[in-house]
Amino acid sequence: MTEITSGVCAPKGFLAGGIRCGIKPGLNAANSQKKDLALIYSHKFCSASAVFTNNKVKAASVQVSQENITDGKLRAVIINSGNANACTGQEGLKAARRMAQLVADIFLISPSEVAVASTGVIGVPLPIDLIEKNIENLKASLQDNKQGHDDALEAIMTTDVRKKEIAIEFDIDGKPVRIGAMAKGSGMIHPNMSALKHATMLAFITTDAAIIPSALESALRRAVSRSFNRLTVDGDTSTNDMALVMANGEAGNAPLTETSSGYSIFCESLEKVCVTLTKMMARDGEGATKLVTVTVEGAISEETAETLAKSTASSSLVKAACFGADANWGRVLCAMGYSGAEFNPAAASVFFRSPAGEINVCKEGQAVKFCEKKAKEILLQEEIEIFIRLEEGEGKASVWGCDLTYDYVKINGDYRS
Amino acid sequence: MTEITSGVCAPKGFLAGGIRCGIKPGLNAANSQKKDLALIYSHKFCSASAVFTNNKVKAASVQVSQENITDGKLRAVIINSGNANACTGQEGLKAARRMAQLVADIFLISPSEVAVASTGVIGVPLPIDLIEKNIENLKASLQDNKQGHDDALEAIMTTDVRKKEIAIEFDIDGKPVRIGAMAKGSGMIHPNMSALKHATMLAFITTDAAIIPSALESALRRAVSRSFNRLTVDGDTSTNDMALVMANGEAGNAPLTETSSGYSIFCESLEKVCVTLTKMMARDGEGATKLVTVTVEGAISEETAETLAKSTASSSLVKAACFGADANWGRVLCAMGYSGAEFNPAAASVFFRSPAGEINVCKEGQAVKFCEKKAKEILLQEEIEIFIRLEEGEGKASVWGCDLTYDYVKINGDYRS
Repeated sequence: MTEITSGVCAPKGFLAGGIRCGIKPGLNAANSQKKDLALIYSHKFCSASAVFTNNKVKAASVQVSQENITDGKLRAVIINSGNANACTGQEGLKAARRMAQLVADIFLISPSEVAVASTGVIGVPLPIDLIEKNIENLKASLQDNKQGHDDALEAIMTTDVRKKEIAIEFDIDGKPVRIGAMAKGSGMIHPNMSALKHATMLAFITTDAAIIPSALESALRRAVSRSFNRLTVDGDTSTNDMALVMANGEAGNAPLTETSSGYSIFCESLEKVCVTLTKMMARDGEGATKLVTVTVEGAISEETAETLAKSTASSSLVKAACFGADANWGRVLCAMGYSGAEFNPAAASVFFRSPAGEINVCKEGQAVKFCEKKAKEILLQEEIEIFIRLEEGEGKASVWGCDLTYDYVKINGDYRS
Repeated sequence: MTEITSGVCAPKGFLAGGIRCGIKPGLNAANSQKKDLALIYSHKFCSASAVFTNNKVKAASVQVSQENITDGKLRAVIINSGNANACTGQEGLKAARRMAQLVADIFLISPSEVAVASTGVIGVPLPIDLIEKNIENLKASLQDNKQGHDDALEAIMTTDVRKKEIAIEFDIDGKPVRIGAMAKGSGMIHPNMSALKHATMLAFITTDAAIIPSALESALRRAVSRSFNRLTVDGDTSTNDMALVMANGEAGNAPLTETSSGYSIFCESLEKVCVTLTKMMARDGEGATKLVTVTVEGAISEETAETLAKSTASSSLVKAACFGADANWGRVLCAMGYSGAEFNPAAASVFFRSPAGEINVCKEGQAVKFCEKKAKEILLQEEIEIFIRLEEGEGKASVWGCDLTYDYVKINGDYRS
């Protein structure tokens, strides 16, 4: 498995592009330059699978994409930023369907082969006329290279500071297979996505692997459960979350099923791509200064380990302590305690880890003497891990989050301005 | 029902006091003056009832108080601040029992008649020797007046900025009955207390009503479910939360049972006391600049209304928008959407209210045109209400919270220093 460049355009047969059509209001100099409309397109039919937010309030784009992906086939996905097209009623649904139709028209395909995604402010009618006017420009921006990927990625970003992208190559049956991906998301992140039911993080994954839709769905479902669904920035689950994978078969391998010998390497690779994007999103959480990984080992089950780790990574008090590089492990035990999950606090040990070292701050539920200076040094790093060891079983899970900072409050205190 | 002064010392037969014994580290000038040990004592036996945190990690003081209150009888409660005595193992339990014993010794009563409460940092051994050395001073500080109450209240405060206290008087059978109360709590507040099972908000309530223990317990349970359990500051449920009521019968009314004619006025009065303390705690949330009340009406049940309101009041994004006086109602719908509760988003209407007026920002799930200037004016007030109207039933609930501010991050980024 090697990392390569060009993101969603790394797999054969995929084009991507991005332009500015004016949805992001040009109120200030920065915004008036920002791209806000992206397209990913495959020359051939793709097996496709997606997971969506399970928020009861679903963006129109989510509803339309859920309809269009039911047959496990797609050719394209169109994405706008600057407007969530959520809480916009029947007009919003019409606008989302129109987005799919516009893409269908320029490629002479069916609108049911087009997924739609939106991110931005909730409750404002989507200016569909801007998309309509610029659909030919969007098509003209498509490229099968790094530039195409870069343009598309730029167009889906909102408060993101860093780019989230990855592409890898591995072999199946002696044939090189590629998976490429891009994602956006830094706030309103606490994904809770269920495959084919209901996931503003957006992730778009392309692959030239040949794989049947049901096998692709299983692979995505498992990868999402161990990646995006273990991400927390602020505990808010968006109306627009979506993770989508399209596989066009251009690599020329024998089509993968769940029993193929090459299936496990595909699944592993997909999980690696999703985990990488997850960590990038956590690191780029709104206002975040650091990536915080919480790992629980020795729980009675993987599910319990995940619940305990997620409660800890989501705690405002733990997150503020991470910002302050304060080794306040009591907050860690406290957060596990109110998670609702079963564990024995008297058997819990807590460690802080980072490139600066490791320190044990709590042993079997109680304080151990530790060097505050060393703890501070460890917690001042940009990537830290809270490691919790229990003594109840084999359950293990890592969850990714970030610290809670002044800038988070600043960014979200007046997001609409 | 009239408001009176003197807090927990307002009801007849109660004494209170508070001193500094040195548990709060005197690292800086402010702390070196702060009281940290309080006592409330009744001349007579009291019917008593309490609710405690249901965090799996319970402070030693919580465990000891749970034991001592099983018979529904108490005479005293001793409270320290500056140390939570949580995650302190067997030594912590011994220290908590010793606190009860010390009080028992000076009054020649049984330690099982003494409740114990602690608040402060988790995981640091409680310096019981400081309490032992100062127990006579604590006894000497007891007074049956406003000063006694003020001293006790001062001693239980940690990051609290404002005092939370109330006392009221009402009539039962022509006799004046009083309820007095004090509370602390501004951070780590998202109480989740179950009566007689298992809250760092602390609330101590005294009354001179005569009431049998089971009736007192029912009254407390109902009052807590509609007050403290509808409070959220940061979503963290403490290891130490506790609300305790002691009734000594000094008012001379016929002892209240659940069928007494005076029982409903007692219940109403107790609920009023608890709701008042709840709003005071929300307004004084760590770093908070405003009290945010979220009210949901028209839900299918009161429970559903509470879940929807709590999810909204707990949302970091909603709280940050309140701080920024940003009428971002989409975040309100979004937070209700991921609450897990049943409701029809397409029938939801949202209003913002404050002493500056009322504005409708969302009607039946969609944007309505509103004056941004007026919205800002409303949201800039110190007390605001997010009012949500559904069309599904008669369920109604209010939840109390606060905004998320720079100061919250500052206070919690380095709490231990």
